[in-house]
Amino acid sequence: MRTTAPSNRSRLRRKYERGRYDKESLYEILDSCLLAHVGYVLDGAPVVTPTLYWREGDHIYWHGSSASRMLRKSAGCEVCLTVSELDGLVLARSGMHHSVNYRSAMLFGTARKVTRREDKIERMRIFVEQMFPGRWEQLREINEQEVKATTILGMPIDEAAAKVRTGGPVDDEEDYGHPVWAGVIPFVPKTPGEPVPDDRQDPGTALPDHVRNYRVAREVS
Amino acid sequence: MRTTAPSNRSRLRRKYERGRYDKESLYEILDSCLLAHVGYVLDGAPVVTPTLYWREGDHIYWHGSSASRMLRKSAGCEVCLTVSELDGLVLARSGMHHSVNYRSAMLFGTARKVTRREDKIERMRIFVEQMFPGRWEQLREINEQEVKATTILGMPIDEAAAKVRTGGPVDDEEDYGHPVWAGVIPFVPKTPGEPVPDDRQDPGTALPDHVRNYRVAREVS
Repeated sequence: MRTTAPSNRSRLRRKYERGRYDKESLYEILDSCLLAHVGYVLDGAPVVTPTLYWREGDHIYWHGSSASRMLRKSAGCEVCLTVSELDGLVLARSGMHHSVNYRSAMLFGTARKVTRREDKIERMRIFVEQMFPGRWEQLREINEQEVKATTILGMPIDEAAAKVRTGGPVDDEEDYGHPVWAGVIPFVPKTPGEPVPDDRQDPGTALPDHVRNYRVAREVS
Repeated sequence: MRTTAPSNRSRLRRKYERGRYDKESLYEILDSCLLAHVGYVLDGAPVVTPTLYWREGDHIYWHGSSASRMLRKSAGCEVCLTVSELDGLVLARSGMHHSVNYRSAMLFGTARKVTRREDKIERMRIFVEQMFPGRWEQLREINEQEVKATTILGMPIDEAAAKVRTGGPVDDEEDYGHPVWAGVIPFVPKTPGEPVPDDRQDPGTALPDHVRNYRVAREVS
């Protein structure tokens, strides 16, 4: 994995921002989140679209309808796929040193279409199984029209930058005595609520383990 | 507000994706979230950076260190600022009709620097006050070096698209009898946890209302 150079940041901020340049940190962020923001260039202007993604080894994938503008226009093009989670608000003694605790991963590369039918189905199976282990086999089988109607884009994870900030405020030394509350308002990690069964299903339908035990973090090799 | 035309989506997906083209829906999304993903074009390639933002009337702002690459390189350029929240996972009887409940807002425009010293301070004051009412006056006063070290970008909210999906799965009619659990795993809305006071503060420092009663949603005019 070739990581990007740390961006040129002011000394004031650098002391509490931390680049992470190892695979483990990057994959941990990717596997603990669900939503990515994919940026691409359309007629010279940037477009940023939210989408789910999944990781398989050192590749990242995202998908949608074959008619999606984002997927049609970004296939074969350079993209930036960013995954971020806001973990807390950091309140300092000066406005300047307020900050946020967060995790973010930026992946750069050229988005390639998964073209072979069998590869597309396998990617979709893995995506579903990572989210909901055991579910793929329980679903109504995918049909040819659906395979065609789905576009999957992917790229190797080889140019990436991860950033993580944790902990409390870092104030100017002379401000520590300033009489204002300082600290962190953490956010509760993303948590599933009570599952809501579809109105049209047989009320006797058992709740499967992949719903009962659903966790946001994915078990990815 | 000039909203963008709905993107060209397949009939299969369109039935459960809903564009919202009124200001109220758009502002509601913006005011209930904190994190934006700003896309810009750097040497012809897209870059997507997460950042906090705030809304003042029909303008949107974001900020950071004046040394930030994102702020330096996107000032005066076209950007796409996207705000998204994932509200739930939608489990259908076929893989095809799995979906997510979400809210998203995409804003397009040219990012302009706030240049006047007084305007910058006023923007920062409003940003802090929207997040933490009453806090600005309690902080150590901002100094000239800090004003210079901070760059604020903004743009009018005049080209925008909002999307909201809610509700359960929409399956193919013939699949409703398929014996797999279908429904929604909702996510608990972003919630603040117990505030963590800074180690270095006087333990007698009172917890202010803007921390005790902190809510993610902002009261914005």
